[in-house]
Amino acid sequence: MAGNTFGKVFKLTSFGESHGTAIGGVIDGLPSGITIDHEMIKSDLDHRRTGYSGFASPRMEKEDVEILSGIYEGKSTGAPIGFLIRNTGHRPADYDHLKDVYRPSHADFSWEQKYGIRDHRGGGRSSARETAVRVVGGSFAKMMLNEYGILCVAWTGAVGPVEMEPLTELPGKIFIEKSPLMCPDEELSDRMVEFLDKIKAEGDTSGCRVSCMITGVMAGLGEPVYDKLGADLGKAMLSINAARGFEFGSGFDAVRMKGSEHNDLFIVEKDNPLKIRTKTNFSGGIQGGISNGEPIYFNVAFKPPSGIQQVQTTVIRKGEYVEIKPGGRNDTCLVPRVIPVVEAMAALVLADHLLINRASRI
Amino acid sequence: MAGNTFGKVFKLTSFGESHGTAIGGVIDGLPSGITIDHEMIKSDLDHRRTGYSGFASPRMEKEDVEILSGIYEGKSTGAPIGFLIRNTGHRPADYDHLKDVYRPSHADFSWEQKYGIRDHRGGGRSSARETAVRVVGGSFAKMMLNEYGILCVAWTGAVGPVEMEPLTELPGKIFIEKSPLMCPDEELSDRMVEFLDKIKAEGDTSGCRVSCMITGVMAGLGEPVYDKLGADLGKAMLSINAARGFEFGSGFDAVRMKGSEHNDLFIVEKDNPLKIRTKTNFSGGIQGGISNGEPIYFNVAFKPPSGIQQVQTTVIRKGEYVEIKPGGRNDTCLVPRVIPVVEAMAALVLADHLLINRASRI
Amino acid sequence: MAGNTFGKVFKLTSFGESHGTAIGGVIDGLPSGITIDHEMIKSDLDHRRTGYSGFASPRMEKEDVEILSGIYEGKSTGAPIGFLIRNTGHRPADYDHLKDVYRPSHADFSWEQKYGIRDHRGGGRSSARETAVRVVGGSFAKMMLNEYGILCVAWTGAVGPVEMEPLTELPGKIFIEKSPLMCPDEELSDRMVEFLDKIKAEGDTSGCRVSCMITGVMAGLGEPVYDKLGADLGKAMLSINAARGFEFGSGFDAVRMKGSEHNDLFIVEKDNPLKIRTKTNFSGGIQGGISNGEPIYFNVAFKPPSGIQQVQTTVIRKGEYVEIKPGGRNDTCLVPRVIPVVEAMAALVLADHLLINRASRI
Amino acid sequence: MAGNTFGKVFKLTSFGESHGTAIGGVIDGLPSGITIDHEMIKSDLDHRRTGYSGFASPRMEKEDVEILSGIYEGKSTGAPIGFLIRNTGHRPADYDHLKDVYRPSHADFSWEQKYGIRDHRGGGRSSARETAVRVVGGSFAKMMLNEYGILCVAWTGAVGPVEMEPLTELPGKIFIEKSPLMCPDEELSDRMVEFLDKIKAEGDTSGCRVSCMITGVMAGLGEPVYDKLGADLGKAMLSINAARGFEFGSGFDAVRMKGSEHNDLFIVEKDNPLKIRTKTNFSGGIQGGISNGEPIYFNVAFKPPSGIQQVQTTVIRKGEYVEIKPGGRNDTCLVPRVIPVVEAMAALVLADHLLINRASRI
Repeated sequence: MAGNTFGKVFKLTSFGESHGTAIGGVIDGLPSGITIDHEMIKSDLDHRRTGYSGFASPRMEKEDVEILSGIYEGKSTGAPIGFLIRNTGHRPADYDHLKDVYRPSHADFSWEQKYGIRDHRGGGRSSARETAVRVVGGSFAKMMLNEYGILCVAWTGAVGPVEMEPLTELPGKIFIEKSPLMCPDEELSDRMVEFLDKIKAEGDTSGCRVSCMITGVMAGLGEPVYDKLGADLGKAMLSINAARGFEFGSGFDAVRMKGSEHNDLFIVEKDNPLKIRTKTNFSGGIQGGISNGEPIYFNVAFKPPSGIQQVQTTVIRKGEYVEIKPGGRNDTCLVPRVIPVVEAMAALVLADHLLINRASRI
Repeated sequence: MAGNTFGKVFKLTSFGESHGTAIGGVIDGLPSGITIDHEMIKSDLDHRRTGYSGFASPRMEKEDVEILSGIYEGKSTGAPIGFLIRNTGHRPADYDHLKDVYRPSHADFSWEQKYGIRDHRGGGRSSARETAVRVVGGSFAKMMLNEYGILCVAWTGAVGPVEMEPLTELPGKIFIEKSPLMCPDEELSDRMVEFLDKIKAEGDTSGCRVSCMITGVMAGLGEPVYDKLGADLGKAMLSINAARGFEFGSGFDAVRMKGSEHNDLFIVEKDNPLKIRTKTNFSGGIQGGISNGEPIYFNVAFKPPSGIQQVQTTVIRKGEYVEIKPGGRNDTCLVPRVIPVVEAMAALVLADHLLINRASRI
Repeated sequence: MAGNTFGKVFKLTSFGESHGTAIGGVIDGLPSGITIDHEMIKSDLDHRRTGYSGFASPRMEKEDVEILSGIYEGKSTGAPIGFLIRNTGHRPADYDHLKDVYRPSHADFSWEQKYGIRDHRGGGRSSARETAVRVVGGSFAKMMLNEYGILCVAWTGAVGPVEMEPLTELPGKIFIEKSPLMCPDEELSDRMVEFLDKIKAEGDTSGCRVSCMITGVMAGLGEPVYDKLGADLGKAMLSINAARGFEFGSGFDAVRMKGSEHNDLFIVEKDNPLKIRTKTNFSGGIQGGISNGEPIYFNVAFKPPSGIQQVQTTVIRKGEYVEIKPGGRNDTCLVPRVIPVVEAMAALVLADHLLINRASRI
Repeated sequence: MAGNTFGKVFKLTSFGESHGTAIGGVIDGLPSGITIDHEMIKSDLDHRRTGYSGFASPRMEKEDVEILSGIYEGKSTGAPIGFLIRNTGHRPADYDHLKDVYRPSHADFSWEQKYGIRDHRGGGRSSARETAVRVVGGSFAKMMLNEYGILCVAWTGAVGPVEMEPLTELPGKIFIEKSPLMCPDEELSDRMVEFLDKIKAEGDTSGCRVSCMITGVMAGLGEPVYDKLGADLGKAMLSINAARGFEFGSGFDAVRMKGSEHNDLFIVEKDNPLKIRTKTNFSGGIQGGISNGEPIYFNVAFKPPSGIQQVQTTVIRKGEYVEIKPGGRNDTCLVPRVIPVVEAMAALVLADHLLINRASRI
C-alpha cells in the first residue's frame, strides 16, 4: 500500500533516498528469454543524468548500475532483477540548515505531516533522484517491448511561453537528440534555450510540457473499465515528480470540439482489406480504454522546479518565519532530464498491459 | 487484472452491461460502524440519471438500487456491500443492426480486437451505464468521508467555447444545483444551454470540462512515490468514459509559469500559530504526492459524445463500408450527468487513501 | 484488504450474510470465449446444499443462481460475471436469543472484537453459507479448466476414527457419488455412516478429512517463491470454514521419511522418450512450488462443527455466564457438503495459476 | 504476479539466486517511527546460517546485510528499506556437471518446464538461500511486533521418528537455544541428534516438524473470509522450501475429535470480569479466521532434503538416464536452520494483519 511498487504483472519496486547509501529496485515479472541490453540501461541513465548541462542540476556523479540477479547467459530467467545505484556525490551535511525548514512547494511539510519524521537531506525519498530507478525499470520494459516492435519516444513540447504545435507523426530521434532540450524543432529549441538562459540568470525556473508517442502497439491493450490504458498512462505520468497534468489524444482541446469533428472515422487500408484503421486519431490510439492499433500520444505538464535561486520567506517546524537563501543545486527546467523518465514510465505501462492482456481470451 | 475493481483498501468491484439483466457491484473495505444514508445513494443516482433533460439521453427508467448485504441495524458491519440495479428500460433488439458495425470513436472495434467477441447491445460493458455503479460506490465513500468532514464537489467549468474562470473557493452547492448544467455562474450557464441547444439541433455533440474541489482533507494523504494522491485522482478521472485529460492545481498553466510565481509560500495562521498553511495554492493541495491540508482541486476534460445524429460512413467486421444513420439515444454533452460520477470517483480515491494512510506510522 | 476477493488474475469477489437478502459474487478475469455450462453450476450447488440428508443441516431451500452479466450468446465475453442467490429459507427471528451470546468455537466473539458490531443472525458473514459463492466461482473455473483437460476431484478420506488409506490414483466419480458421504470405499462409507448416526444421536458432531486429486495439470504452474502452487492451494483450503490443516504429497508423513525413500526419481516414459515423469509422487505433483505434470493431491482436515445439540455454558457480551440449549440446525460432520467446496477452491487456484503462468515467458 | 512479493500492506519483495552476485530485498510498508535493531537482524541471520554445524550444509560464509535506505537517525521513516547480502562463498563452476541434469525432487525439471531456461548453479532462484531474505524481512516485522508485545517462537517438534508431545505453553527460549537442534526437550534433543548422526553416516537425510507459538496477539486480526489468519499463516509456511504440511490448533487431530471435546468454552478471567478467554484452545487462537486473543500455535511438516549423499539414477534434458554421484553440500535435516525462517514468516503475516486490521472500523 505504501506505493513503492509500480505495475501489476510487470512490476517495479523502488527504494532509496537522495542522500542515503544507494537507490535501487527490483523488477518482478520480466518474462524469461529476453536478451539483456546493458548498453541501453547505461544510455537511458546518461540521458536522465546530464541533460543539457547548462540547465541541469550540477550533480554529475557517474551512475553505475549494478545488476544483482535474474540474468543467466545474457538472458532473463523469469527470476526478479535486483539492481543498485550507489550514491557517491552526496554531501548530506550541505543540508543541515534545512533540517527544520519547510521549503516552499517541496514535499517537506506534507511528508512530515504524514510520517512525523523526515529525512531532510536533499529531499530524501521525495527527491527526483528516485527517477533513476524508474529509468532502469523502463529500460527492461523497453527490452521486452522491442520484441514486439513497440517504441516509446518523448520530446519537449513547450518550455515557458515557447510552444510547439502538436505532431501527428513520430519525430526522428535524431532531431530530438541533437537539441540540447530534446525539442525536435530546431528553431524552437533555440528559443527555448534562450528563454531558459534568461530565466536562469534571474535565479528563476520554468514549467514545461513533454509530448510522447508510442508506436507499434497492437490493438487490444488496456482493460475496459477502471484500468483503461489512458488511465494507467495518466497515473504513471502524474506519479513523476512535479507533474501537474496529463492529456491524451485530443486532450483538453476536446472541450471545444464537436462530435462531428472529433469522431475518428474507420477506414480500410488500401492495400490490405483486412487492416482497419482510423482516418484521424483524436482518440490518441485508445478507444474505450483499449488500444486500437493507431499511435498513442499524450502530453504531460510539469511545474517549474521549486528550488529557485532567490531569497524566499518560509516557515520552520515550530511555526516561525525564516528566510531561505539561494544555494544548493537545482534544475532550471525539468526538460530535458525528465524526457527519459516519461519514456520509462510509458514503457512500464505498455509492458504491463501487454502481459495483462495475455489473460483476456481462452 | 481485468480491471473491474477500483481501489486498494476501499475497493469497488463492478459488473454488468448496458442491456444485460442488471448492473451492480461489491464494496469491500468499508469500515464497520458507518451510518448508512439511503437517501444519499438515491439522490446521487438521480443526479447521474436525469441531468438536464434536454441534453441527456432519454433513457429515463427509474433506478432502484437493491442493497443486498453488509448492513445491520442501519450501520455498516465491515462485511462487503453487494448491490444491484436492474436494467428495465432496455430494448436489446434496437441494436440488432449494429451487430457487425464498428461505430466511429466507440469501443466496438478495440473491444472486439481484444476479446474476439462483443456484446454489441448498447455498448455492452463499455457503455457509460457502468458509471451508475461508480456513483453507488461513491455514495458509500462519501458516507465515510462525512465522518471526517471531507467534501467532494464538482461543477461544469466549460462547454464547447463557453469557459469559466478557475475558482479558488468552493462554489455553493445551491448555485451549482440551480443550473441545469451544474455551472455555478448563472450567465455562463445560460450561454452553455444556448450553445447546446444549437449543437443539438444540428445533430451534433460537444466536449466539456468538469472542475472539482475537495475540502476538509487533512495533511498526510497520498503515498509519496507511485501512488501520489494526484496520480490516483488522475487515474480515477481518466477511467471515466470519454475523459481525455486531467490536471490538478496549476495544471497545464504551470507550463508557462516561473518558479517564483508558482511556489506556494508557507504562512502561519494568524489566530493559530500551530496551523501552517500556504499563501497561494498552485499545488492544488498536494505536495510531493501528499495532501498538505489545503483544498484539492482539479479539472477533467471530456470529449464530445461519439453518438451524433448525423449520417456517418464506417466499416463493418468484414472490412466493407456502410452508412450509419442517426438513431438511438445519446447525450449532447457529458455534463451535467458526468458531474456525480466525477464526485464519486474523487470520493473513492479519498476514502481509499484515508484508510491506506492508517498504516503510515507505528 | 478486507479479504473478500480470492485470486489474482482469475478473481472471485464474494458478498452476503447467512440471513441477509442474498449472497452472491463477481467473477473477474474469466477469459472470453468459454462456453457457459449452466447445468454444472446447478449440479455443483446441489451437491453443496443437500449432501446426505441425514447429517446435513436441514436448510433445504432451493438455491437459484441468477447470472446477471458477462455472457453473450452462451459464451463468456471477458466482462465480469455478476451472480446472485437469494436467501429464501431464513428466519432471522430464530436467532434473537443469540444476540449477545458468544457461542463456543464460533466466530461470534472474535468477529465482535474486530468490528465492534455483529450481525448475529445465523452467523452472519461468518456462516458457511458463503461457501455457495465459492462453489459458483469454482464452477466457472472448472469450465475454463475443462478446456485444458484439468480435473479436480475430492472425496471423503476420514470421518472420526474411520480412515481410508491414501489413494495413488483418481477414484472413479461413480464410486464417490454413490456413497452418501462421498467416500469411494463402500465398506468404509458404511462404517462412516454408522459412526455419524451414533454421534448424531448423542447430539454431537465429528471431524473429518477430505482428499483431493487434480489431474491433467501441465508442468509449469505455480510461482517459485512466495506463490508456490502448494502454498496457494493451502491458503485456499485453509480459508474454508472449519479447516484446521492442509498437506500435499507426502504431507505430515514426510516428517518420518528419509530422503532416499522420499526422492521421486525421474523416468522417461516407455513409449515416449520426450515425456519425462517421476516413478513415485511424494512431491504431490509440485516441485519447487511448480507443477511437474504428475497428479496433484492433498488432504484437508476439518474440525467437528461447533453447533452441537448439547447444553453448553458460555459467556455473553457483558461477561456473564449463560447456558445455551440445543436448537437450530447444524451439520453432524462437514462431509459430504464440503466436498464441492474443496473442489471449487482447487479449481479457482488452478485457473488463476494457469492465467498467471501466461506471463512467464516472452 | 511472479510471486516474489509477500504480504499486502507490510510487503517483502525478494530477489537473488544462490550463486549470483547478491540476494536482497525491499521491505515496503514498514510504518515510520520504529527503532531499528541491527543486532536482531544479525542474530536472526546467524541462526539461519549455521544451525547445529554437524547437520547443516557447510556453506559458512559470513552474511553481512547492508541496509541501503529507509532509516534516519536510527528509526524507520516510512520509506522502503532496501537491503543486500552479497554471495561470497559461491563457486558456480562446482555445478557445471549439473547443467543438463534434473536432480530428483529438486526444482530443476519443473522450473525449466516453466521458463525454458534455468540457472542451474546451486539451484539458482529455487535455492533455500532465498530464505535469508525472509529472515531479514522477518526481523523488521519483529521490530514492529515488539511494540505491541507480540512474540513468535518456533522450535523443533519432531525429527524422523523422534516426536515431541504438543506444548500448550511457550517453551523458554533458553531451552530451545541450548539444544543444537532447537528442541526444548533435552532428552528428545539428544535422541534427535543421535538419529541424525546415524542418517548422515548413511548419506541420507530426514524429514522434520517445526512447531511455532505466537503470544501477545490482540483479538481481531485476520480477515473473515478468504484472508483468514490461519489461511495466511498456512500460505506463508507452505511457501518455505520443502514444506509439505501445515496445521493450526487441533490440526489433523481434529479429524478424530467430537464437537463436545473440541469446542473451546468461553470463560471470564477471575480477576478481570472484562477479560473473556477460552478454557481450552483447540482453535489455536483463531476463530472464524480472526484471532481471539489466545496464543496462536501451529505445526509445519518439512520433507527430508533431496540432496542425499548416495548414487541416484536420473534423467537429463534430452531424455537419457545418468547417474549422479554424492557431492556438493547439503543439510541432513531442515532443522535447526529452518526455525528462524518459520519465525520470520510468522512475523511477516502478523505484522501485515496488524496493519490491515487498522482499516476495519471507522
